[in-house]
Amino acid sequence: MNYPEHEQRPHTLRLRRLGIDTYQEAVIYMRRDCHVCRAEGFEAQTRVEVHLNGRMLVATLNVVDSELLAPDEAGLSEAAWRRLNARPGDVVALAHLAPLESLRHVRAKVYGHKLAGDAVQAIVSDVAAGLYSDIELAAFITACAGARLDLGETIALTRAMIEVGERLSWNYPPVVDKHCVGGLPGNRTTLIVVPIVAAFGLTMPKTSSRAITSPAGTADVMETLTEVKLDVPAMRRVVEREGGCIVWGGAMRLSPADDVLIRVERPLDLDSEGQLVASILSKKVAAGSSHVVIDIPVGETAKVRSTQAAQTLSALLVEVGHAVGLTVHTVITDGAQPVGRGIGPALEARDVLAVLRQEADASADLRERALRLAGTVLAFAPGISPGEGARLAREILEDGRAWNKFEAICAAQGGLRELPVAAYMHVVKAVQSGRVTEIDNRRLARVAKLAGAPRAPAAGLKLHTPLGLTVEKGQPLFTVHAETPGELAYALNYVALQPGIVYVEAET
Amino acid sequence: MNYPEHEQRPHTLRLRRLGIDTYQEAVIYMRRDCHVCRAEGFEAQTRVEVHLNGRMLVATLNVVDSELLAPDEAGLSEAAWRRLNARPGDVVALAHLAPLESLRHVRAKVYGHKLAGDAVQAIVSDVAAGLYSDIELAAFITACAGARLDLGETIALTRAMIEVGERLSWNYPPVVDKHCVGGLPGNRTTLIVVPIVAAFGLTMPKTSSRAITSPAGTADVMETLTEVKLDVPAMRRVVEREGGCIVWGGAMRLSPADDVLIRVERPLDLDSEGQLVASILSKKVAAGSSHVVIDIPVGETAKVRSTQAAQTLSALLVEVGHAVGLTVHTVITDGAQPVGRGIGPALEARDVLAVLRQEADASADLRERALRLAGTVLAFAPGISPGEGARLAREILEDGRAWNKFEAICAAQGGLRELPVAAYMHVVKAVQSGRVTEIDNRRLARVAKLAGAPRAPAAGLKLHTPLGLTVEKGQPLFTVHAETPGELAYALNYVALQPGIVYVEAET
Repeated sequence: MNYPEHEQRPHTLRLRRLGIDTYQEAVIYMRRDCHVCRAEGFEAQTRVEVHLNGRMLVATLNVVDSELLAPDEAGLSEAAWRRLNARPGDVVALAHLAPLESLRHVRAKVYGHKLAGDAVQAIVSDVAAGLYSDIELAAFITACAGARLDLGETIALTRAMIEVGERLSWNYPPVVDKHCVGGLPGNRTTLIVVPIVAAFGLTMPKTSSRAITSPAGTADVMETLTEVKLDVPAMRRVVEREGGCIVWGGAMRLSPADDVLIRVERPLDLDSEGQLVASILSKKVAAGSSHVVIDIPVGETAKVRSTQAAQTLSALLVEVGHAVGLTVHTVITDGAQPVGRGIGPALEARDVLAVLRQEADASADLRERALRLAGTVLAFAPGISPGEGARLAREILEDGRAWNKFEAICAAQGGLRELPVAAYMHVVKAVQSGRVTEIDNRRLARVAKLAGAPRAPAAGLKLHTPLGLTVEKGQPLFTVHAETPGELAYALNYVALQPGIVYVEAET
Repeated sequence: MNYPEHEQRPHTLRLRRLGIDTYQEAVIYMRRDCHVCRAEGFEAQTRVEVHLNGRMLVATLNVVDSELLAPDEAGLSEAAWRRLNARPGDVVALAHLAPLESLRHVRAKVYGHKLAGDAVQAIVSDVAAGLYSDIELAAFITACAGARLDLGETIALTRAMIEVGERLSWNYPPVVDKHCVGGLPGNRTTLIVVPIVAAFGLTMPKTSSRAITSPAGTADVMETLTEVKLDVPAMRRVVEREGGCIVWGGAMRLSPADDVLIRVERPLDLDSEGQLVASILSKKVAAGSSHVVIDIPVGETAKVRSTQAAQTLSALLVEVGHAVGLTVHTVITDGAQPVGRGIGPALEARDVLAVLRQEADASADLRERALRLAGTVLAFAPGISPGEGARLAREILEDGRAWNKFEAICAAQGGLRELPVAAYMHVVKAVQSGRVTEIDNRRLARVAKLAGAPRAPAAGLKLHTPLGLTVEKGQPLFTVHAETPGELAYALNYVALQPGIVYVEAET
C-alpha cells in the first residue's frame, strides 16, 4: 500500500486563549476556513487529536465562523488548555482521532454480550486517556448500570482501573481504610474515624471523593476545614507524621478512569453496582490499603433500599476485594434518615466538630455510627477483638485524643479553617401538628443541591426534627441555607412543589 | 410557603453573536462575573432555560473568563441562535432548568424496569422539546438499545413519536411507501421504486433520511441530483403534480423526537430494534402513508445478520404497524454484499441513473432489487396480484416511463443537477490472485465514511469486484474517492490497517 506523501506533514495552528470554561470537556475552536479544517474535512463535533510538546489530548471541535480567531489560530476550552499546559502562541499539531477499537466492546456490551478481561482493559485504558467523548462515556455507563456487570466483569473492571492509575505503598502494615457506599445525607463518619484510628496507631491514608450525586462528598466537607488537594509527596508527609490524613483522591490520579467516568455519572445521576464496587475497591488498592471496612446504610430512600440488596452488595464487595488482595469487612447500618443535622459541606463539618469536641448538643447518631465503624477498623489490628475495638474507640474519642489528632492532621494538611456561613436562609415550618413519621433522604438531598451544595460550601440545609419527634404547627422542620438569592428561591420552589419531604402525620 | 420577592424578576442579558458552530447542541456563553451567574449560582455545564420573544430552549452553559463578552452580554451557539431566531442585541431572559421529571423514567429503564405508555410520552415530549442534554439522550438510547424494548414499549414509543410531530394527509388512497432497514451500502432502490410507482399512478410521497451511521442516506444521494430540503407545501405541490417525490424528512419535523435522537445515535453508532421500528413507522404514519413495503437485507455484515433476526424484526414491524394503523409488507433480501458499485452519495446516484436510463453497464443487482420492491408496492393497488405487480414494474422501467417520471420529479423539486466528481482517488489492488470470497460491508462503509462520505458528496468508493469474481494479483479491487487529501490519506491508512475488507482467497 502506498501512502500519499502529505500524510507525513502534520497540520498546525497557533493557540489563542479564549477563556471558555466547559467544565472538564476538552473542546477545540477552529475557523471553518482554516487550512486544517479544509484539508482534513473537519466539521463541528469532529474528534481531533491535539499534540503539544509531547502531550496529547482528544478534543471535540467547535467551528468558528467569526473573528474570534484568525484563520491560522485555534482556541481551547480551559480544561484542555490546562491539561496541555499551553501558553498563548504555542503551535499545536492536529489530526483526526483514529477510530477507537475499544468502542466495539462497548457496543457489544450494549447489545447484551459479556465483557472479557481484555475488552474491559481496552475500554478503561482509552477512558483514562481521555479518548472517549461525553456521549460515549454515557453509553458505557448506561450499558453497565443496574446489575448488568456480573462478578467476572466487575473483577475485570476493578483490576483494569487499578492498572491505569498510580499505586501507593506504605511501610507499616496493616494499612486500613473505611468507606461508605453513600446515599445517606450527613453521614460524615470518616472525619471522626480517621483521627481515632490514627491516634490508636494504625496507618490510615484516607483518600476521599467529592460528591457524585449527593450534596456533599467527604472531600467537600473536609475542604471547608482544611486543604484537601494534596499531591502524593505531601500526603505521604502528613501520613508519616500523623498516621492518617483525609485528602481528595482525585488530585492524585489513583483511579484516573474513575475520575473521568464520574464526570458523566454525576449529571446522569446513575449508579451501577459493578462500577460502584470497582470504583471503591480500585481506589483502596491504589491507596495501598490492605484492610477496609465498608459501611452500607439501608433505608427506603438511601442508595441501598433493602437488607437483601445490602447483602448482595456486601458479598460482591468481599468477593471482588478478595480477588484483588483486599480484606473487606462490611457493616450494614440503618439508613432511614440523615445522620447528624447538617446537609451540605460546611453544615456537615459543623456536626463533625461538635462530636470531636464532645459538645453538649453533638449529634448522638453521628457519634455512635462513627464509633461502631472505628471499632471495626481497630479490630484489624493484631490481637484486638471487635468488642475491644469498640471500647478503645470510645475511650480515644472521650479522652480528647481524637480531637487532638484531628487538629494535628488539619495542621499538617495546611491549617484548620473557619467554617463559612450562608448569606441567605429560610426556615421551612410544619403545616400541621403531629409526629415526624417519614424523611425522604433523596428529596432532602435534592433540596440541598438546588440550594447550591456542594459547589457552594456554605449551602445546604439543617434538619431540626429527627424521625419520631412530635412537632407543633409552625415549628421549624428544616432551614435552607444558600449563598445566592437565586439558589434559595430555586430550592424553596422545589420544596413547595414536593410537600412531605419531612412528613408530619397528624396525631389522632 | 413564602417565596422571596426576587424570584419574580427574570434575569436578562443582551445577545452578542459569537459565530460558534457546535453542530446541533445548544450552548449559551456567559461571563463568570455577570449578575446572572452570580445571582443564580450558574457554572459550566448548568442547563439554562433561554427565553426570547415567546420561544424557549434549553442550553448548556459555557462560562467565559475573558473579553469575548461584556458582563451584560450572552452568546449562543449557532444552532441555538437559529432556533431562537435571534438578532444581535436581543434581550434574553434566563432561568435554571427545572428538574426534568421524565428522567426518572429513563433511570427506571436503565435499571431494568418496563416503560409504561405515559412514561414514554413524557420522555419523547421532553426529547422533542430539546430539554435533554446529549449525555441524557445517550443514556436513553443506550437503555433502549439491543432488544431492551418489548412490543408494548415499542408501540408506545411509536405512538409518542407520532404525537409530537406534524402529520400529513393525502386525497388519493392508498398512499404507499417503501423503506429499507439499512446496513447495505449502495442499496439505493428508492430512487428507482418511486418513479415506477408514481408512473403507475399510485401516490408515493417519500420522505427519506440522511445517513445515520452509513456513508450515505437516500436523502444524501438524492441531494446530489436535485433539491431535497422542501417544506410541506412544496412537497405537496410536487406530489400533486407527479404522484411522488423523494425529499428529506428532517426538514419537515415529521418526527422531531427522532430528529433529536439521531443526532446522538449517529456518533454512537448504536442501533436499537425498538427505536428502529418506532423511527421507521412513526415517520410513515406522519407522512400520511397507509401501506408500506419494508426491505430487510440479511447478511453477516449487514445490519440484520440472520434470517431468524430478520423474521423477528419483520414480525415486530407488522405488529407495531397494525397497532398504529399501517399495513406493512416485509421483503427479506440477500445482504451479503453491497448493491450496485458505488458507496457514497454521488457514486450511488451514478448507479441509479445507469439503471433508470437502462445503460448497458447498469448494475443488474440494483435493478432486480428495485423491481422486486416496486412490484410488491404495486400489489397494494386494488386488483393487482404480486406477480402482476412485478411484471408491471419491469414494463414501466423498460419502456422508459420510470426515467421520464424521475426527470419530472427532479424538475418539480428544483431541477436535475450535474453529479460532483472527487478530486482525489486511489485504487486499492489485490495483493494476490484468487477468488473474492468475502466482502465486509461494515468495514467498507467505514472506508467510505473516513474518505468523507456523506458530508463530502463526491467521496466514497467504487467497488470493482463482486463476490465470486476471480482476480489477478494487482487487479483493482476498489477505488477510494475523496474531496481532500487528508481524508484520502485517512481512509487509506484504515485500509492498510484492516487487510481483507475485500477478501481474495488464493485458488489451489
